[in-house]
Amino acid sequence: MHVERANRILKALDRLDARQMLITDPMSILYLTDIYVQPFERFFGLLLRSDGNHILFLNRLFFVPQDVGIEKVWYSDTDPVEDIVAKYLDHSSPLAVDKDLTARHLLPLMEKKAAAAFINGSPAVDYTRGIKDAEEQKKMIAASEINDAAMAQFKTLIHDGVTEAEAAGKMLEIYRSLGAEGFSFSPLVAFGANAADPHHEPDDTVVKPGDCVLFDVGCIKDGYCSDMTRTFYFKEVSEHCKEIYHIVRRANEAAEALIRPGVRLCDIDAAARDLITKEGYGPQFNHRLGHFIGLKEHEYGDVSSGFDWPVQPGMIFSIEPGIYLTGDTGVRIEDLVLVTEDGVKILNRYPHELEIIG
Amino acid sequence: MHVERANRILKALDRLDARQMLITDPMSILYLTDIYVQPFERFFGLLLRSDGNHILFLNRLFFVPQDVGIEKVWYSDTDPVEDIVAKYLDHSSPLAVDKDLTARHLLPLMEKKAAAAFINGSPAVDYTRGIKDAEEQKKMIAASEINDAAMAQFKTLIHDGVTEAEAAGKMLEIYRSLGAEGFSFSPLVAFGANAADPHHEPDDTVVKPGDCVLFDVGCIKDGYCSDMTRTFYFKEVSEHCKEIYHIVRRANEAAEALIRPGVRLCDIDAAARDLITKEGYGPQFNHRLGHFIGLKEHEYGDVSSGFDWPVQPGMIFSIEPGIYLTGDTGVRIEDLVLVTEDGVKILNRYPHELEIIG
Repeated sequence: MHVERANRILKALDRLDARQMLITDPMSILYLTDIYVQPFERFFGLLLRSDGNHILFLNRLFFVPQDVGIEKVWYSDTDPVEDIVAKYLDHSSPLAVDKDLTARHLLPLMEKKAAAAFINGSPAVDYTRGIKDAEEQKKMIAASEINDAAMAQFKTLIHDGVTEAEAAGKMLEIYRSLGAEGFSFSPLVAFGANAADPHHEPDDTVVKPGDCVLFDVGCIKDGYCSDMTRTFYFKEVSEHCKEIYHIVRRANEAAEALIRPGVRLCDIDAAARDLITKEGYGPQFNHRLGHFIGLKEHEYGDVSSGFDWPVQPGMIFSIEPGIYLTGDTGVRIEDLVLVTEDGVKILNRYPHELEIIG
Repeated sequence: MHVERANRILKALDRLDARQMLITDPMSILYLTDIYVQPFERFFGLLLRSDGNHILFLNRLFFVPQDVGIEKVWYSDTDPVEDIVAKYLDHSSPLAVDKDLTARHLLPLMEKKAAAAFINGSPAVDYTRGIKDAEEQKKMIAASEINDAAMAQFKTLIHDGVTEAEAAGKMLEIYRSLGAEGFSFSPLVAFGANAADPHHEPDDTVVKPGDCVLFDVGCIKDGYCSDMTRTFYFKEVSEHCKEIYHIVRRANEAAEALIRPGVRLCDIDAAARDLITKEGYGPQFNHRLGHFIGLKEHEYGDVSSGFDWPVQPGMIFSIEPGIYLTGDTGVRIEDLVLVTEDGVKILNRYPHELEIIG
C-alpha cells in the first residue's frame, strides 16, 4: 500500500468534505496498492478511510495472494457485495466514489443509505495521480530513455520499398531488446500525406523520396508509459516541408521554455498555438497541445484551453504541437516533460533538428 | 430503430413502475438502433420513453450520419451533457438506468433531481435481449451453420507434428472463406492434458497419438455469434477416454432433450449435472452448463443453479457439459440451442459421435 499516495488523496478529499472514498478504477487501485486485477463485470474496490484503516474488496475468483498491507475482504459471487461494503462505511458521513463506479453498485449502496451523501471524488484521485512521486518519476525517466534509444533505431528501418506496416512490425522487438515490457500504445508510422491524419494507422504505403516519415511511439517500462513523436524526411526535403517543420519545432520549444511551477496549462497551450496561428497554420493544428501520462498512455488532464491548473513539480505531460496539411504532409514534434521545482526537465533528449534519413 | 424491441423493454419496465429508461450499454443501443459507437469516456445514451418519442444522445465527435428513425440530440465536449439529458426526462416519474451507467453521469442527474427516483432497469433489457426475434434467430442459425461447416475443416488441421497454436492460426481464414466476419472469441484448441483447463490458450504443445483434441470455437455472421465445442481423438482412443466422452455426450443430450417452454434453466443444468455426478465426476464438471449468447458471445443469463427463469420460445443459449481431469484429459461437447414453441432446435448439427482423426 502506498500510504503517502493515499494520504494525498484523502487530503484532497478533505476539501470536498469527504473522509471516505470508494475507488473502483483498476488503474487507480494499482497506483495505490501495486495490485492489478481486471475484474470484468465483478466488483473490485478499495475503500480509503481517513483513519488509515483502508480496505480492499476482492472476489474470491481474483488471484491476489500477496499481502497488501491493508485488510482484504473477500466475497463470493453469491454474496450481496454491497451489504459487505456497507458494513465498512460511516453511514453518517458522505462517501466519495469514483466516476467509474457503475449504477449496478451505486444504486444498492444508496438504497441502503450506506452514506450520508454520495459525491464524485474522482478529481481528488485524478489530480493526485497527475503529480508523480519520486519513484514514478524515476520509472518514467527510464521509459523515455528507452524511447530515445528506440527512435535512433526506428529511423534505420526506413529504406527504399519499405511500407509503414513493415516498419511498425519491427518496433516491438527493438523495444524489448532495450528492456521495455511492450508498447504503451500501437505505434504510429505515417509517410507523406498519411502524416496529415494524426490518427493514421500503419498500412501498405511505400515510402517515396521527399516524404515525411512520422513516428509517434511509446513503450512501457516498469508499468509506466513513454510517448514521443519525431518527423524525419526520406532522402530529401522540400522548402515547403522545411518551413512547416521549423514552425512546429519553434512551437514545441516555445511551450517547453515556458514551463515552470505556477504557469497554467492553458497558457502553455496558448504559447504553442499562438506561434502556429501567427504563421498562418492555426486551423491546421487541430488538437490539444498535450496530455497527462503515467500508468496509462492518456491520463486525466490536458494541456489545452480547457485546463487552467497551475502546473506543479512532479507533473508529467506531453508537448506535441503539429501542423497537418490534408493530402500533402504533416509534422508533429512531441516530448514528455517533467515539471521540476524551478523549471522543467525534458524527458526526451532525441534531437529536434530536421533530419534526412534513408 | 427496432420499435418492437423497444416496446418489449418498455413493457417489462412497466412492471418496475418505470416509463422512461436511459440505456448506455453500447451493445444494447446497437440492439435497438443498429448503431454501434465505441464511446470510450464520452457519454452515449438512448432514452426510451413510453410515448414512443425515443431520443439518441450523441457526442459531435461520433460518426453517425444515418437516420435512426428517432430524434438525435448532439452535444459537444464543452456542453454539460447531464443538463441536456435532463431536459428530455419526466422529472416527476422514476427513471430506469442500466447497470453500466457510471457515477460520472448518474450523480449529476440525481443532483438535478432529473427524475423522481433512479432504479436499475437492466433486468428489463437483459431479459428482452435474451429472447431473440425472428430476424435474430435467422442470423444466429446462419452463424451456427458456418460453425458446423468450419468444424469439419478444423479437424483436418490436425496431423503429426502440428501444435495447438498452428491449428488455431489457420481458423480465421477458414471462417472467412465460409462467409463469417471473424471470430466471436479467440479459438480454444487443447490437446491431451491441456483440455483439462476449460480456459487453456493454444500454445506450442504438439499433438500425440491418443490425445484428445478439443476445439471450442465460434464466429460472427451479420453481427451475431456462434459457439460450439467438439472433442476428437488423435489416431487412437483409450477405454478411459471413451468412458468419460460418453458420459459427457449423454449429459449433453439429456439436457437438450429436456428443453421446452416452461422448463427452468436451473432444471436443465441439473439434468446434465446429476447424470455426471451419478457417474462419479460431479466435482470434475466445475462450471455452469451454459450461457446466453447473441450480439456478444456471453450475454446475461446462465444455464445454472442460480437462474430459475422458465425458458421461453426465442431464447438461445449454450449447453456445454464437460469433465476435466487435471494432468490427464478433458471432454466438452457444446451446442447452441433455440427454444421453439413446442420444444427445441439444436443449432449445431455437427455430430456428437466419438470421432478419431489424423
